Amino acid sequence: MNTEKIPDIIIGRLPIYLRALQRLTEQGIHNTSSQELGEMIGISAAQIRKDISQFGEFGKQGTGYSVPFLIERLQAIMKINRIWDVIIVGMGDIGHALARYNGFVNRGFNVVLLFDNDPGKIGQKVNNLEIYSMDTMVEKVKQNKIKIAMLTVPASAAQEAAEQLVKAGVKAILNYAPIHLSVPKDVHVQHIDPATHLQRMTYYL
Amino acid sequence: MNTEKIPDIIIGRLPIYLRALQRLTEQGIHNTSSQELGEMIGISAAQIRKDISQFGEFGKQGTGYSVPFLIERLQAIMKINRIWDVIIVGMGDIGHALARYNGFVNRGFNVVLLFDNDPGKIGQKVNNLEIYSMDTMVEKVKQNKIKIAMLTVPASAAQEAAEQLVKAGVKAILNYAPIHLSVPKDVHVQHIDPATHLQRMTYYL
Repeated sequence: MNTEKIPDIIIGRLPIYLRALQRLTEQGIHNTSSQELGEMIGISAAQIRKDISQFGEFGKQGTGYSVPFLIERLQAIMKINRIWDVIIVGMGDIGHALARYNGFVNRGFNVVLLFDNDPGKIGQKVNNLEIYSMDTMVEKVKQNKIKIAMLTVPASAAQEAAEQLVKAGVKAILNYAPIHLSVPKDVHVQHIDPATHLQRMTYYL
Repeated sequence: MNTEKIPDIIIGRLPIYLRALQRLTEQGIHNTSSQELGEMIGISAAQIRKDISQFGEFGKQGTGYSVPFLIERLQAIMKINRIWDVIIVGMGDIGHALARYNGFVNRGFNVVLLFDNDPGKIGQKVNNLEIYSMDTMVEKVKQNKIKIAMLTVPASAAQEAAEQLVKAGVKAILNYAPIHLSVPKDVHVQHIDPATHLQRMTYYL
């Protein structure tokens, strides 16, 4: 394996490769090529070969990639060959949708705790999980050594909630609030913002 | 302007630049540099300069970029110097969240029609918009010349709904369903998938 730092942009493409490979598995396909993957996801075959080769020699010239082997290797590289516990902070519409979503476990994640600060929501259950008060969040996250949170509180509450998460030891935040979060350098933030995704398409219309 | 085709990956970064520039405006900052932008969004200054220079000479050596001018240019390039009508298909938790979200209009989008096929939801109002039956979708989308849809139906219903949207003339779909959509080449799809975003962070944990 290349011992130099792998660029973030390559790491960002690995989940897309993994999803395509898992789709091939569902279709009963056990061998693939960078060409086939490229056509599925709209990335050039050369780019895919270059990205994957950063981590070792996984394919053979002429015979392509073994789908199960490449899935296993990508999962190991991304550290999702285990299940990560995840919390949801903010139980509005999006929090509910995430709590009910059944597509996390086979992708490496398990939602274990839900938080909100609305007394009308605290104590309710969503998908068999109780909603806890945000007052107990730092303590519960520390106790359970949670490293990953999905943040779906309103924009006005997001920075403060993020600071509490950082205090509790969270190192990865999936931010649904439409603001930029200021967090320490060792905390990773991914932003889900529908307007940004829409703007990526209007250029072509 | 460069008359060759601009790579998709550059187009994909423009909304991120725009959001950073709009954040600077909110902070009362009217001039910026590729260094400052780069620090805000985690992309190298050289990459930002290269991307922006694809569209013309917008910055001056030594004095940087005028924030309002660059915002205006990026909005024109992305064709969001107008408001695009958008529909929501599927009024579950995510559909409701999107219908209530007030961050679209100042980003170039306006939600105008909601659809679901649950008789219990049809006729209800969300954010002053009535939920219509999906049976009327093709007709209403054609009538209103809608080009953009957000698709938040269950995975099992997504491909069929996408085909109806294509039939109605939609050219851009923001897909929240956890499946790959097969659509003609001239239809653009962006996928919002929380598991993929989480997987982009576990590598670093």
